[in-house]
Amino acid sequence: MDLKYQNGLIPVIAQDAKSGAVLMFAWANAEAVQRTEETGYAHYFSRSRGKLWKKGEESGHVQKIVQILVDCDEDCLLYRVEQTGAACHTGHTTCFFRTIQGKEITRPVFDPAKVYANKGK
Amino acid sequence: MDLKYQNGLIPVIAQDAKSGAVLMFAWANAEAVQRTEETGYAHYFSRSRGKLWKKGEESGHVQKIVQILVDCDEDCLLYRVEQTGAACHTGHTTCFFRTIQGKEITRPVFDPAKVYANKGK
Repeated sequence: MDLKYQNGLIPVIAQDAKSGAVLMFAWANAEAVQRTEETGYAHYFSRSRGKLWKKGEESGHVQKIVQILVDCDEDCLLYRVEQTGAACHTGHTTCFFRTIQGKEITRPVFDPAKVYANKGK
Repeated sequence: MDLKYQNGLIPVIAQDAKSGAVLMFAWANAEAVQRTEETGYAHYFSRSRGKLWKKGEESGHVQKIVQILVDCDEDCLLYRVEQTGAACHTGHTTCFFRTIQGKEITRPVFDPAKVYANKGK
């Protein structure tokens, strides 16, 4: 599959393979996609930190790959995963825990202060 | 909610509110988000055509908004929708109908030639 990277990156949607919940949105470079395929665990590329990262490398909240799908234009990936713990660094199962009006629709399932030492996700 | 647009755009994931299927990935500008909220139907911004579009404006395969969610970083939206027809211009229910190895995992539910006159989605 000839994936279309833009500036070396492709958008990735992570979805819980069992519940169907959309967990998070992130970016990957070719190396992150390759590592994901090779290891069976979701890897991304952090634009803010300028480096490849394995989801859960700090929190332990890894994403085991069930299936990787690609969209019709070959410019977006869908990681279907088994999520350990929760996807969001805020402690919520999914990063999409608020409506556009700002109302929280789910509650955190873990305490970020206990899972993350000093840093972000 | 203070959405974070990059170069005037924010990524949008469309998900079937009933089945949980991730239908497509696209971009929106502030006007597209506003139109989506005002009309209750998904609007996006086409980077290739350089204009706002309503999903289904040509095919009739509109997306009725059930809920709009925003992620923790406020830089990605999730449109939870009722999809009329199918989301993908190829005739598949979802744009994510192939694995990264290129294997089709679903079959088309409509014939694009009959739905689209001369153009793309």
